[in-house]
Amino acid sequence: MAALILKTRLAAELAPINKALDDACEALPAPVLPIVRHILNAGGKRLRPFLTICTARLLGHDRDDIYGLAVTMEMLHAATLLHDDVLDNAVSRRGQPAAHTVFNAASVILAGDALLARANAIVAQFGNPALSQCFSEATSRTAAGEILEISCMRRVDLSEAEYLQIAHGKTACLLGESCRLGALRANASPGEVRAAYDFGLNLGLAFQIVDDALDFAPGEQTGKPTGGDAREGKLTPPLRLYRQSLGHAEREAFDRAFANGTIDEQMAGEIAKSIREKGFDHAARQIAGEYLQKARDAAGRLPDRPERKILLLMADYVGAREK
Amino acid sequence: MAALILKTRLAAELAPINKALDDACEALPAPVLPIVRHILNAGGKRLRPFLTICTARLLGHDRDDIYGLAVTMEMLHAATLLHDDVLDNAVSRRGQPAAHTVFNAASVILAGDALLARANAIVAQFGNPALSQCFSEATSRTAAGEILEISCMRRVDLSEAEYLQIAHGKTACLLGESCRLGALRANASPGEVRAAYDFGLNLGLAFQIVDDALDFAPGEQTGKPTGGDAREGKLTPPLRLYRQSLGHAEREAFDRAFANGTIDEQMAGEIAKSIREKGFDHAARQIAGEYLQKARDAAGRLPDRPERKILLLMADYVGAREK
Repeated sequence: MAALILKTRLAAELAPINKALDDACEALPAPVLPIVRHILNAGGKRLRPFLTICTARLLGHDRDDIYGLAVTMEMLHAATLLHDDVLDNAVSRRGQPAAHTVFNAASVILAGDALLARANAIVAQFGNPALSQCFSEATSRTAAGEILEISCMRRVDLSEAEYLQIAHGKTACLLGESCRLGALRANASPGEVRAAYDFGLNLGLAFQIVDDALDFAPGEQTGKPTGGDAREGKLTPPLRLYRQSLGHAEREAFDRAFANGTIDEQMAGEIAKSIREKGFDHAARQIAGEYLQKARDAAGRLPDRPERKILLLMADYVGAREK
Repeated sequence: MAALILKTRLAAELAPINKALDDACEALPAPVLPIVRHILNAGGKRLRPFLTICTARLLGHDRDDIYGLAVTMEMLHAATLLHDDVLDNAVSRRGQPAAHTVFNAASVILAGDALLARANAIVAQFGNPALSQCFSEATSRTAAGEILEISCMRRVDLSEAEYLQIAHGKTACLLGESCRLGALRANASPGEVRAAYDFGLNLGLAFQIVDDALDFAPGEQTGKPTGGDAREGKLTPPLRLYRQSLGHAEREAFDRAFANGTIDEQMAGEIAKSIREKGFDHAARQIAGEYLQKARDAAGRLPDRPERKILLLMADYVGAREK
């Protein structure tokens, strides 16, 4: 029932969000439009604009101009995905061929740049420097998170704090800033702006950790190859727990393969199976649960209006995600 | 004498500009710092911040906080260069190895993203939405120009209007916006803001056309391989004039090689020699001269203060550039 309420609400917002995205992208240079449409039409739940809209409404902003502002966060996210696909040399994204396999890499990078610039211009048009600061903060931190992730690749000694810093930058900040953007637009008090940001940030940390747990789920369940993080050299929470559980000789072999990037599909499948059998994916979800509790606590510092219930349902949704 | 005045003035501004650049980059994520320093320390005349500073002073802004704002345009420019080097697969830049040959391509792209985000954040901190709009306009148009250039590559039927649109986007706009930024910061009148922009824009168009003429100068003069634009499939003004001068059979051979990207170093050298002998590089400079006149006219609509003389000297400098 609760899930249905959220689903209905998300579905109801999808059309105006997509309309606003179309409008925002109309002014883009013609040659990049197919690339931008490719990434935006590949799906995505529009969680970021949804967070901005919910937060703004919760804090008393009732006007429909929120859609134009909210989609800037999806544009930033899409720009990041375009650059990521080139960086990772990814073959597919959300079940579609990755943009750079359809278009050339140079155009994909420039499409990301143009999309980001357009989003930035839209935010600037609102004429409120706090909104522009929020947007540029989101951009800076997302880039910083990805940079840190790359510089930490294949390191078996990655600390939990370093992992959290990466998750913070590459995922959580953008969700936090999406909420902050809505709160700022609603002219909320500093305490409410902070609570909105804290909600999004903790939701984002949980989202990333659940994502990391799902990386070791069977491919039939998620539609993605199992254990991709192990192959790419990302020491996520389930993988750290797995590594700690190994005996000396086994761990030495794992460390060597992980550091050298020689974990193949078969080995990744075996690691994933072992992670599930030993319950390390479940353990990671428990860590995510702690951040979801922090998110719920932050939501508790926001006004008791119907939209707060939606935010709480989103926390439930993130915790229960199975693919 | 005139050149000396400009040179002295540029030299005097170089230290505070570089100091402001260092300060601005301090907050960047540590892993990208070496990449950013690589591109910023590779030289560059800092023309863009210099334009912002001159325009702001000319229009009555005397405070030194202009340096912090002015360097955002150099940061945008450097971010573009970082992405360009990856896109073009360039081997060197300003006589130094290109960033992506020293660092990995993924880090270079992300360093560009982080640099742009940081510049954006600095502009937002000034708390004036017009400045943020100016910055995002510069970013959007630069990306659009580069995208258009890529989509027009190897086209022998590129029109003069299309060429100008590319030059406008990839070079001239940023110089125009650099001037506008200074004028806005000085709280200039709309007419003065427009004149400042027109000056920079036309200076930029001339700059690009002179650059295109210099592409066919002997390598000993410029330190760059001759005729790179012919090899890369860019139909610049001297090359269009050259193509028009060819007889039917010769033109067909040129068109085929240009469209297929099979112009080699030797053929490019021969084309360049012919362009110089027939004076097409000189003819391109004459076109540049017309834009410089427009730039001077625009400067004429600005107050008659010492900085206006500097702007006029810059127009002379762009026209006389030999490497």
